Formats: sequence, C-alpha cells, structure tokens
Amino acid sequence: MDQAIRDVMEKLVKENAYMQDLNLSLEEYEDGYAKGKMVIHDRLLNPYGSVHGGVLYSMADIVAGCAACSRGRFSSTVHGGINFLKPAFHTEYVICEANEVRYGKTVAVYEVKLFDDKEQLIDTGTFTFYLMDRKVV
Amino acid sequence: MDQAIRDVMEKLVKENAYMQDLNLSLEEYEDGYAKGKMVIHDRLLNPYGSVHGGVLYSMADIVAGCAACSRGRFSSTVHGGINFLKPAFHTEYVICEANEVRYGKTVAVYEVKLFDDKEQLIDTGTFTFYLMDRKVV
Amino acid sequence: MDQAIRDVMEKLVKENAYMQDLNLSLEEYEDGYAKGKMVIHDRLLNPYGSVHGGVLYSMADIVAGCAACSRGRFSSTVHGGINFLKPAFHTEYVICEANEVRYGKTVAVYEVKLFDDKEQLIDTGTFTFYLMDRKVV
Amino acid sequence: MDQAIRDVMEKLVKENAYMQDLNLSLEEYEDGYAKGKMVIHDRLLNPYGSVHGGVLYSMADIVAGCAACSRGRFSSTVHGGINFLKPAFHTEYVICEANEVRYGKTVAVYEVKLFDDKEQLIDTGTFTFYLMDRKVV
Repeated sequence: MDQAIRDVMEKLVKENAYMQDLNLSLEEYEDGYAKGKMVIHDRLLNPYGSVHGGVLYSMADIVAGCAACSRGRFSSTVHGGINFLKPAFHTEYVICEANEVRYGKTVAVYEVKLFDDKEQLIDTGTFTFYLMDRKVV
Repeated sequence: MDQAIRDVMEKLVKENAYMQDLNLSLEEYEDGYAKGKMVIHDRLLNPYGSVHGGVLYSMADIVAGCAACSRGRFSSTVHGGINFLKPAFHTEYVICEANEVRYGKTVAVYEVKLFDDKEQLIDTGTFTFYLMDRKVV
Repeated sequence: MDQAIRDVMEKLVKENAYMQDLNLSLEEYEDGYAKGKMVIHDRLLNPYGSVHGGVLYSMADIVAGCAACSRGRFSSTVHGGINFLKPAFHTEYVICEANEVRYGKTVAVYEVKLFDDKEQLIDTGTFTFYLMDRKVV
Repeated sequence: MDQAIRDVMEKLVKENAYMQDLNLSLEEYEDGYAKGKMVIHDRLLNPYGSVHGGVLYSMADIVAGCAACSRGRFSSTVHGGINFLKPAFHTEYVICEANEVRYGKTVAVYEVKLFDDKEQLIDTGTFTFYLMDRKVV
C-alpha cells in the first residue's frame, strides 16, 4: 500500500488522545486490511473485571476504520455491530484484525475479529463506512 | 424501582475507571429505563474533532446495561449495534436514553437514542443482553 | 410527497412476485415514512406456527426501502438488522412502520417497528440504504 | 452429529411451505455448522432483477437456525443482521454457510456467508439465537 497513507494513519492513531488511553497501536496495515494491538490496563476493565465492551468496540471501530482509509479516502462509520462471544478476562493484550468485504463508490464494509492473548476468538463485528471525498494524502 | 438496585448501579458507574474517563453519570433510572449524561472533554474526540464513535457506543452500552440490570439481575452484552446519524461536533454533553423492548427469561433487548446539547438525535442503537442468574442485590 | 413517486412505488410493490407472495400492501406513504400491511397466510409461517422471521425481515426491508425511495432516488439495502421481540402467533396481519433517522448524500437510515393485530410490538429493526443516482421518476 | 437430529431438521426444511417457496435444501450439516442451497426462480427477485434481500436474509436465518439446532435444542432468532455486499444477479443458485462462534447455556451466535454460482461472496451476516429447553429429538 501507499507509504504516505500508512504514515498519516499511524500518526493519527499515535496522536489521538482517546486511542492513547486505549493503548492502541497499528501492527499491520495493507490495502483493505488492518491489524491492531491493545495492551490492557486497569482503566479499561468493566465492573466484572474483564475488558469493557465499549473498549473492545472502540478498538474494532478504529482498526476497521484504518482498513477503510487504506485505499486513500477518509471514512466515517455509518453502522457498527459487535458480538461478544467470550469475556476477555486476564489477558495482557487484545489483537484485532479487520478484513474488507465490500469497497464500493461510497460505502465500504469490514469484518473484524478480536482475540485474547491465548489466541481465543472473543468478539466478531461488522462495520459499514461512508467514504468521504476527502483524501488521506 | 428498588432503591437498593439503584444504589448499587449508581456506585458501579461512579467507581468504574473507564466510566469515570467517559465522564458518565446516571441521570434517571426506572424499571426497564435508564438515562445517562456524558460531559465531553478533549480526550473523547476523534481525529476529526467530533466525539469518538467508540465513546458514543460505550455510553450507549453502559446506559442500556443499566436499564438491563434495573429489574434485579446482572447482565452482559451479547450483541450491540449502533447507527451514527450525525457527527457530535461542538457539544458540551451527550444524553443517552435506553428503553426496554424485550425482557425475557434470559434475553433482554434495549433501544437507545443519543442526543447532543441542541437535542438533536445523533445516534440510535440496539443492545441485546444475556441475563445472569447473579442478582444485583 | 410527490404523487408520481408514490404511483411508481405502489406499482412496484403490487407487481413484484415476491411481494405478492408476502401479501404486502403499502398503506401510508410520506416523505421519509412508509407504513405497510401484510395479511398472513399459511405459507408464511415457520415450523413453530408463527410468522417466519424471514418473512418479517422481508416486510421490514421492503417498507423501509419504500421510505428510502420517498425522496425520489432509488435505494439498495447495505445493512439490515432486526430484533425479534415476541413471536407473531395467531395474527391476521402484521403492520410495519418505517421512520427516517438519517438522509444523507448517499446513505439513509430507517428504523422500523412491526406490530401484530393486537397492536403489540413484535419486532424492531434498523436498515441502512445506499442512495443511487437513479431517479424514481 | 446425531443422525436423528439431522433427520428431523431435514424434514422440517422440506415440509415447511415458506422454505419450499424459497427452493431451499440443506446440503451439509454438522455440529455447529450448516450449508444450504437455494435454487433461484423468478418469484424470488426484487424489482431490479436480482435476488430479493428478504429472500437472502431468510435463507441466512434458516441455515443459521439449522446450525443452532444441530446440538439438539430448538432455537429462535433474537437478532439477525445482514450486510449486502454485491447484488445477486443472474445466478442459478445461492449457497449459504453458517459457522458457530458461540454456543452458551441459552445464547448461540452464528456467522453466515452467502455465495453466488461464481463463488463470489455476496452477503455476510450474524445471527443470535435463544436456545429453548425443548429438545429436537
């Protein structure tokens, strides 16, 4: 993929305060694909002691959003849906992968999978994006 | 509704670190209904400058989760879906209301609406919960 | 709303074979709003004897699709989600209402509610449409 | 898997009138997995001439429902969500596969993929089921 797009997007993830609080980094990034890692700390847990569902959703939305921007246009989420399969207890980190299933003229769709540090699938989701006219670079 | 349940849930929202970072408070709470308020600060914005979608989802999940616990059993989210209708730019706070549409033996469903400080509808969502055997009080 | 659009859409619903098999009619139709009625017969039931979930989804998608076309551009469904709240047993008909929550440049979103003949809410759903360049009239 | 469960479920699919109208057959069936085939005819098309979204949803719901019943308890859909990626034009048949991602005490989740006769992925979906106490055999 275009290195300039990758640079902009990695910078966005690094400099955004909310993504910093989520401890999020972009690990792999290709056309129509992104993989992120989130290192878990206490402020990301729910009252039961597992990773908060909103934190997991946020990670999924961000990683899918990176994938949606990989082809050079900025995107915004229209619909996000997530299935919580297993609680993420006692995991050092969470891995999220987003794969493109549709890239149309103005709508793109990504499927995401989230894994704990034992490589167990903990969540799946689908994100629909509106593709803006505005270019990433 | 049962005052003891309300007390436990308000305490949970107040003491959970992630909910603190979201600046979230429970404003109204009845059987099958909850209303929350989130006061926006810079660390909750996306790179475009509006409230991050993950933040909005988190609020919706938490407020719907409170509604799901209002009848006395703890709950965990099975599926969460959110529609982003308008970006939440320049709003001091976001209001979220969750209304029950199903309360079965082990599955409950809530619809949520999020509003900005001009009372504009910015997001809608639907959350499906598993109802645990474990009691709130 | 534009009477010519209404005429085209009513004709589409009447002449499409699948919608005929669903026994579907368009009862009310305004800008951003549609209401449909489906008269239930035996071929629309699931093995448990209530109206098949696929039939209810189909009705919801069609009525929301009519609402999406009400402003003059054809639409196609990008994402459809439906919550089954109560089974539709022993109901003569089902009523479906679709209300607009977003009408953007290329994406529109509708919320639907389905009711049985006792006016009980049986399902809720959300449909996201891509708005085509192609005009209805 | 249990042959008696398979027999009951194949009989249900064959004898249900709505599934007959959909021209649906169960092609493969294992614990937590089902694969169906739908042979397309004119009464299943939308006004644009591709397979109706409601028909595709119905197929997905039914095949996922078979997968949900494969472990011996009857199920009913709580939430169904489907993403339409490509229109299904000029395809002789549609194939649908459902894979289990969660099988809990009372809630099960399946992901589905639909393919046209050129093996193109046309839709993806996620279905959440409530698992009844009632046994299949």
